Amino acid sequence: MTKSPSAAIVVGVDFGTLSGRAVVVRVADGAELGAAVYEYRSGVVDRVLPSTGVALPPGWALQVPADYLDVLRYAVPAALRDAGADPAEVIGVGTDFTSCTMVPTLADGTPLCDVPRFADRPHAYVKLWRHHAAQPQADRINALAEQWGEPWLARYGGLISSEWEFAKGLQILEEDPELYAAMRHWVEAADWIVWRLTGKYVRNACSAGYKGALQDGRYPAREFLAALNPGFAGFVEEKLAQPIGALGAVAGELSAPAAAWTGLPAGIPVAVGNVDAHVTAAAGNALSPGQMVAIMGTSTCLVMNGAELCEVPGMCGVVDGGIVAGRWGYEAGQSGTGDILGHFVRTGVPPEYAEQARAAGATLHEHLTRLASAQAVGEHGLLALDWHSGNRSVLVDHGLSGAIVGQTLATRPEDTYRALIEATAFGARTIIAAFNGSGLPVTELIVAGGLVRNSLVMQIYADVLRLPLSVVTSAIGPALGSAIHAAVAAGAYPDVPVAAAAMGQVRRAVYRPVPANADAYDALYELYVRLHDYFGRGGNDMMHRLRQIQREAVAA
Amino acid sequence: MTKSPSAAIVVGVDFGTLSGRAVVVRVADGAELGAAVYEYRSGVVDRVLPSTGVALPPGWALQVPADYLDVLRYAVPAALRDAGADPAEVIGVGTDFTSCTMVPTLADGTPLCDVPRFADRPHAYVKLWRHHAAQPQADRINALAEQWGEPWLARYGGLISSEWEFAKGLQILEEDPELYAAMRHWVEAADWIVWRLTGKYVRNACSAGYKGALQDGRYPAREFLAALNPGFAGFVEEKLAQPIGALGAVAGELSAPAAAWTGLPAGIPVAVGNVDAHVTAAAGNALSPGQMVAIMGTSTCLVMNGAELCEVPGMCGVVDGGIVAGRWGYEAGQSGTGDILGHFVRTGVPPEYAEQARAAGATLHEHLTRLASAQAVGEHGLLALDWHSGNRSVLVDHGLSGAIVGQTLATRPEDTYRALIEATAFGARTIIAAFNGSGLPVTELIVAGGLVRNSLVMQIYADVLRLPLSVVTSAIGPALGSAIHAAVAAGAYPDVPVAAAAMGQVRRAVYRPVPANADAYDALYELYVRLHDYFGRGGNDMMHRLRQIQREAVAA
Repeated sequence: MTKSPSAAIVVGVDFGTLSGRAVVVRVADGAELGAAVYEYRSGVVDRVLPSTGVALPPGWALQVPADYLDVLRYAVPAALRDAGADPAEVIGVGTDFTSCTMVPTLADGTPLCDVPRFADRPHAYVKLWRHHAAQPQADRINALAEQWGEPWLARYGGLISSEWEFAKGLQILEEDPELYAAMRHWVEAADWIVWRLTGKYVRNACSAGYKGALQDGRYPAREFLAALNPGFAGFVEEKLAQPIGALGAVAGELSAPAAAWTGLPAGIPVAVGNVDAHVTAAAGNALSPGQMVAIMGTSTCLVMNGAELCEVPGMCGVVDGGIVAGRWGYEAGQSGTGDILGHFVRTGVPPEYAEQARAAGATLHEHLTRLASAQAVGEHGLLALDWHSGNRSVLVDHGLSGAIVGQTLATRPEDTYRALIEATAFGARTIIAAFNGSGLPVTELIVAGGLVRNSLVMQIYADVLRLPLSVVTSAIGPALGSAIHAAVAAGAYPDVPVAAAAMGQVRRAVYRPVPANADAYDALYELYVRLHDYFGRGGNDMMHRLRQIQREAVAA
Repeated sequence: MTKSPSAAIVVGVDFGTLSGRAVVVRVADGAELGAAVYEYRSGVVDRVLPSTGVALPPGWALQVPADYLDVLRYAVPAALRDAGADPAEVIGVGTDFTSCTMVPTLADGTPLCDVPRFADRPHAYVKLWRHHAAQPQADRINALAEQWGEPWLARYGGLISSEWEFAKGLQILEEDPELYAAMRHWVEAADWIVWRLTGKYVRNACSAGYKGALQDGRYPAREFLAALNPGFAGFVEEKLAQPIGALGAVAGELSAPAAAWTGLPAGIPVAVGNVDAHVTAAAGNALSPGQMVAIMGTSTCLVMNGAELCEVPGMCGVVDGGIVAGRWGYEAGQSGTGDILGHFVRTGVPPEYAEQARAAGATLHEHLTRLASAQAVGEHGLLALDWHSGNRSVLVDHGLSGAIVGQTLATRPEDTYRALIEATAFGARTIIAAFNGSGLPVTELIVAGGLVRNSLVMQIYADVLRLPLSVVTSAIGPALGSAIHAAVAAGAYPDVPVAAAAMGQVRRAVYRPVPANADAYDALYELYVRLHDYFGRGGNDMMHRLRQIQREAVAA
């Protein structure tokens, strides 16, 4: 790695689902000089609203925006201390966020949940990306868009998600119209945090395109929104529209209050907000067509640039400049990966395994991984569907759920663990197959996120996908990506691709497919596809029926 | 309960998989005066042959017949002591056994494993009911029977089991022909123990019919057996045939040696042998058509009398006088019920639940039951298939396996536990539906076995089946059933139904369907049937494919 004499540094801050992470990065070569994490105090609010103790309905997932500000207050100064860095050397700040995570605010950006008269109302809180209770609204939006032949629909693989800005916004209108009326802005958290840092509300091109249905400079039309609900007609101009900022551009200067929170110099450039997955493509220096970036954490986001506009069935979206200015950015995703494994480890593994892990000085994940690694492909006799959080691509259906087939009285926890890993790999394969089949061949998978540390997961993905796996070596890829955008915003590089080439941290082809394993997985993938299509494409609608029965049971 | 002045008592002995249980019962009213258990010293021999230390192949399950005699030596006297009973008051003895459990013997009933020159040969030992290594032989028997249009095949729902007399006998011929030649009798353990008690070999009608393919007074023909293997042509007349004794009839008098073992008076009548599940129908006073008896333990056996002969698809068998003389006895079964719950509790529940259970002074089963009881029907959003041990009825397919659908990141262990209970109830409903649909309406379920203690399981069965559940209150239902047969053999009652009416221990309609729950379960049962038929009737053969892939992976 070339060392630069320059002492210039940038700060990147990544706002995840459970915590925020700040990293201090050298502009010259991307070296990570220090980092810190801050766990959100309220975490994910998905059972009861803390202010009232009232239970939330199934599918709800909220957050408390004060937690995000605490990341600025605690993680940023801690990262500077960890780096032993002089804050005066920091030339820029960049941020990225989970998405679509939405904050309802007053005109000045104050979250409605911070307004005392609204604090008891669930809709006043941040709707986290994985809030799935707006599915009925999403279904109506999709049905109407298809009926009207809305041109933007194909840019989202034919379906928009219940996670996105319109469905979540319509849910507020229909469930709490008074609150909807009081909401002046419906803000991506990615932009809200930049607003807090700069005092200016700039809407980033990535969120606006992928989650806000902004295509070719236009949002869905007023008539379309009125047809969904007359009260929704003005949603775009009244709640959503805002000047767009390109990725890597300057959103504003660090304000005095934000300088006080972070310990950074007031007045330095703050980059336009960004989305955690998309910004990671820069961290992995993977901005060329064919290079698909998989950010594998609780869920997996897959992003890839293309030179041209194609329509990939079931993709999340294609946005001009959505990953890097001047290219078509494609996004697809898996709603649950690490989350599924984490849920299993928390709820499905007996005490003796916990004791064995402790005795071996390993985490339960490590212990199960070691046991599962000893197996040949197919040895456990199981096949699972990775839809515990629904299916984001290619089925785009959050009414789906998980499944596992093949259990016997000899099935052990490590068998299920491995089957769940494999299910997520098969899920990734359905997505890559859709890209390959749409004229966007995928030739390399560049992997980032927490699951990178699990070499069994990595090898299974290489085998199932028959692709070399390159690894983003940064411990916090998105934060590094944000730092790269900060460097561009600060003028240290002319554009993001040049900055990514200098600052990206990646090892190429760390995992390669083992042909015998890949052959064996082909046979299992065939079975996966049958199960996928049976439950996911209308062969058996029972997952939706079960969800409906569940909703009725809970309501009664 | 009417008290009888008579002091007459009978002894029933139940030979189970791991232990034998003796009970002392008052003839007048069936009151259980005392009981004792004896655990078999050798238990189930399924890993290595103790005499040689040589490993047994997969699927083998043997026993040592000396253990059965020890039950007579230790459990019977202990039960008499427990009852404070005068042995002189005992007017008869009855027994029941697991089935099909087979003893290869010399002409005098000496087990071949007790002949020193055969003690090192695995085939010389008792083949326990769950010895599954004769599957290739069973497959050939079924294929040939179907090809030849054998009339007896329909009496077994179209398939006979690898557990039964012919498959296990053919395995000996083909794997140890010398031992086969030395074997004079191939004896149901149910009859062998009566032979030891009386010195006379009488073959009971129940075993002969259900496990020995004796139908309308005929076994499968010599030509059929010769076509399987020329050396097997004489199997029936050389090894199997023996005078048949009706259930409840006298097999003989207690011999002097047996009197010495048991402490009972020599010369008292010993009832014809019987099978544990079938004899329980008497214990529950459930011998009329429409009264289905479910013995719910690790697996479930279902038996019911019918006035006429019907062919129920997928039943285990129908035998004239198979449960009670003069009626057609029907049997069906579920390969896993308590076993599935036990496997889940052992392998799928995290430490915090174990701690909570401990703190509450409850078993993990009790703790999960309490949590699951708080749910409304359908609240967990799950649906499972109860085929972890395959499906005995109505699909008769041991290549099937378990499945569960509907998991989310909010799924908890108590949700899965309840879904597994429900799956076994739905499995029972498919069987009852097959009986109802074949002209044998089921109007009451009489339940015995270990699962009776779980009131959530009971209520779910009542709701799912829309049937009143009566409960056999005896702690050892089969042993009470054997005692009832002893009373009939001793002449205290004219026949088993009259004796059962006087001595049976059952509480009627302890659980009744709750209409709202039953309605809710109808909706879920519809989904179960779709899944059942999809995986079980050829819609998707993936369970067999997974099993095959698993076998290949393990072999490689």
